[in-house]
Amino acid sequence: MSDSTVSRRRAIALAGVGVAGIAGAAAVGGALVRGEVADDDHAGAALGAIAFTGEHQAGIVTPAQDRLHFVAFDVITKDRERLVAMLKDWTAAAARMTAGRDAGEIGAVDGIPEAPPDDTGEALGLPPSGLTITVGFGPTLFRDADGKDRFGIAAKRPPALDDLPHFPGDVLDASLSGGDLCVQACANDPQVAVHAIRNLARIGMGVVSVRWSQLGFGRTSSTSRTQATPRNLFGFKDGTANLKLEEADLLKQHLWVQPGDGPEWMTGGSYLVTRKIRMIVETWDRTSLAEQESIVGRHKGSGAPLGMAQEYDEPDVKALPVASHVRLAHPDLNDGARLLRRGYNFVDGSDGLGRLNAGLFFMAYQRDPRKQFVPVQRNLSRHDDMNEYLKPMSQALFACPPGVSGPDDFWGRSLFS
Amino acid sequence: MSDSTVSRRRAIALAGVGVAGIAGAAAVGGALVRGEVADDDHAGAALGAIAFTGEHQAGIVTPAQDRLHFVAFDVITKDRERLVAMLKDWTAAAARMTAGRDAGEIGAVDGIPEAPPDDTGEALGLPPSGLTITVGFGPTLFRDADGKDRFGIAAKRPPALDDLPHFPGDVLDASLSGGDLCVQACANDPQVAVHAIRNLARIGMGVVSVRWSQLGFGRTSSTSRTQATPRNLFGFKDGTANLKLEEADLLKQHLWVQPGDGPEWMTGGSYLVTRKIRMIVETWDRTSLAEQESIVGRHKGSGAPLGMAQEYDEPDVKALPVASHVRLAHPDLNDGARLLRRGYNFVDGSDGLGRLNAGLFFMAYQRDPRKQFVPVQRNLSRHDDMNEYLKPMSQALFACPPGVSGPDDFWGRSLFS
Repeated sequence: MSDSTVSRRRAIALAGVGVAGIAGAAAVGGALVRGEVADDDHAGAALGAIAFTGEHQAGIVTPAQDRLHFVAFDVITKDRERLVAMLKDWTAAAARMTAGRDAGEIGAVDGIPEAPPDDTGEALGLPPSGLTITVGFGPTLFRDADGKDRFGIAAKRPPALDDLPHFPGDVLDASLSGGDLCVQACANDPQVAVHAIRNLARIGMGVVSVRWSQLGFGRTSSTSRTQATPRNLFGFKDGTANLKLEEADLLKQHLWVQPGDGPEWMTGGSYLVTRKIRMIVETWDRTSLAEQESIVGRHKGSGAPLGMAQEYDEPDVKALPVASHVRLAHPDLNDGARLLRRGYNFVDGSDGLGRLNAGLFFMAYQRDPRKQFVPVQRNLSRHDDMNEYLKPMSQALFACPPGVSGPDDFWGRSLFS
Repeated sequence: MSDSTVSRRRAIALAGVGVAGIAGAAAVGGALVRGEVADDDHAGAALGAIAFTGEHQAGIVTPAQDRLHFVAFDVITKDRERLVAMLKDWTAAAARMTAGRDAGEIGAVDGIPEAPPDDTGEALGLPPSGLTITVGFGPTLFRDADGKDRFGIAAKRPPALDDLPHFPGDVLDASLSGGDLCVQACANDPQVAVHAIRNLARIGMGVVSVRWSQLGFGRTSSTSRTQATPRNLFGFKDGTANLKLEEADLLKQHLWVQPGDGPEWMTGGSYLVTRKIRMIVETWDRTSLAEQESIVGRHKGSGAPLGMAQEYDEPDVKALPVASHVRLAHPDLNDGARLLRRGYNFVDGSDGLGRLNAGLFFMAYQRDPRKQFVPVQRNLSRHDDMNEYLKPMSQALFACPPGVSGPDDFWGRSLFS
């Protein structure tokens, strides 16, 4: 389904999706497509479309949507051309889906009624819902576990895409870690995010295989000054000191890869670290408020740094408890390192021991993990009092290339051509 | 935390939860409480409160909210009084949370600053979000696996709460099936649903233990004529022929337990069957549109029965493919049996074989499962062409008692007193 084979003839748009359903003619007739018509239940929420093209990929500084479906893929072909063709198909499908359209055609595909539909259909009638789709390349895409350069790109591997070190206390599940490619789908409707991931997996059949995937909700970090700071599953505001899209100078300094930072193809991109962190909420919930606040370094209600009155008051870092999270992660104690965090809460059922399997799917974008995530995490993993309540489960690192400039561009063009 | 020990002194309500955060005084001072203040990001969605008290429990005919957190508990005490006390505490906390308030106090509890907070905090600042909390009692509450009548209620077990039979093709995971108690939390914000379940689990510590839990999204059945029919992960509209809250006569006939149906304590209640059904979406997605429509018995786009033009057209049952889902589940072939379905889509990561672990968390309420769910499911399990794409994973049955009438009533009063 390259861009050219996706038929752009769409005779009938979904209109008036309500109790009465779609007009029968639209269903029985030619291709079915998503429109930009809001379901009653969604009216008023953040339903619009977010631009797909640009200097940077959407979904990084985009004000964090409320739902996440994240997936890491293994590439199962050794054929570079097939991989590149899939990236082109993905780019075309992502451009369509983020605009609130179907990935392909639901009905007869190019006149072949026996073909499977080119869209799975579960987002029919749903609006764009702020969908963004963001792609990244893992270290193993450049050189696999056996050291093989499957796709002739080993020389282009950025030094910043170094394997992450082992951190004290980490007992990680390898099957939930790493990956050759990642796709982050964020939207204000989980059905739209799931639809996007599923259709990219469908398009990639034979080229990629799902390695692991994660759903999340209730973004734990705002990425814009226009958003209130949400709460994590410890009940605390999380992300008050996050980098924000309005801080252009800081983003240049801490988020976007700059010319000369490494191989030119990553200029305008960013490095993503993910960590799935189980939070032992049952133990936390038996801890006193004073203890919780001392561990975090903030007041639970207001989110103000301990001893301060307002959430956005600057903390007096030296006055905070020495093993508090806010102190240990503060730029003043980490050579000024800052991150753009974009994590989500998760609940994956229960653990068989009577407890919820809940926590934080941590995601952080940055210009160079060697200077940002790694030293901060080293500090936290050694000293953070919060570790008693955390169980890191997985870790991954991806190089997210710059944005797609237009219809002739595709994810990874700068890497593969 | 019985109703009487929950302090009702709440000096400060959350007001103006925005970028500036909560006023510092509110945080540092006395108890912190949720207000009914909408987050900017949520404005306009279904944010209001749904009445907790009534003849029937809320969350059954309530227009289906978009998010689910469902949990089944094992009761781990043998002490009837502790169980009853917990049900009273749960009722009080549920009344508060569904009104958009905290489960208890976040700050100093009854003047004891060292106590853990009586609310976990992650819903602070979020509106009621249409939260409903619905409780049910499983067969094992009346007589456990060893045949013991732990709580002196075996004689009150309704005949309709019979163990479900084994259905052909089912290979169920016992650890994800059954349960002594269940709680269904539905809301239009997953963080609010998760907060509700987590706080009930916290309140129940030492009395109950989480047996299994499930998150869901994108309700797959509308329960009101005011709602458009949503789509399941096969991409089809699901629940067109569902019982709807506007159909009072049908609800009396098919949904609510009537006087004389069995033990009097269940009058006004309803029986809930849950089934977690994995859908092998990757195989489905390689099936042609014509094949998919023939299996379902409906057109994919419009949701109209095959051969009809509009979603709500009555199907010509005899003209539908003999093994189609709509035909096999139709009341005409099942002695008129109907169900109030209230299922949700789920995606629980991936399965280690490159596929998404996705499907339907089926939930159906009814007056008597022996006459409704069981014969319909027998029919489907034997003949439904869709079974090729389905993998049932779990099953459970609960007796959901009538509604709580007011502040002096509690969940299970009619059973335990």
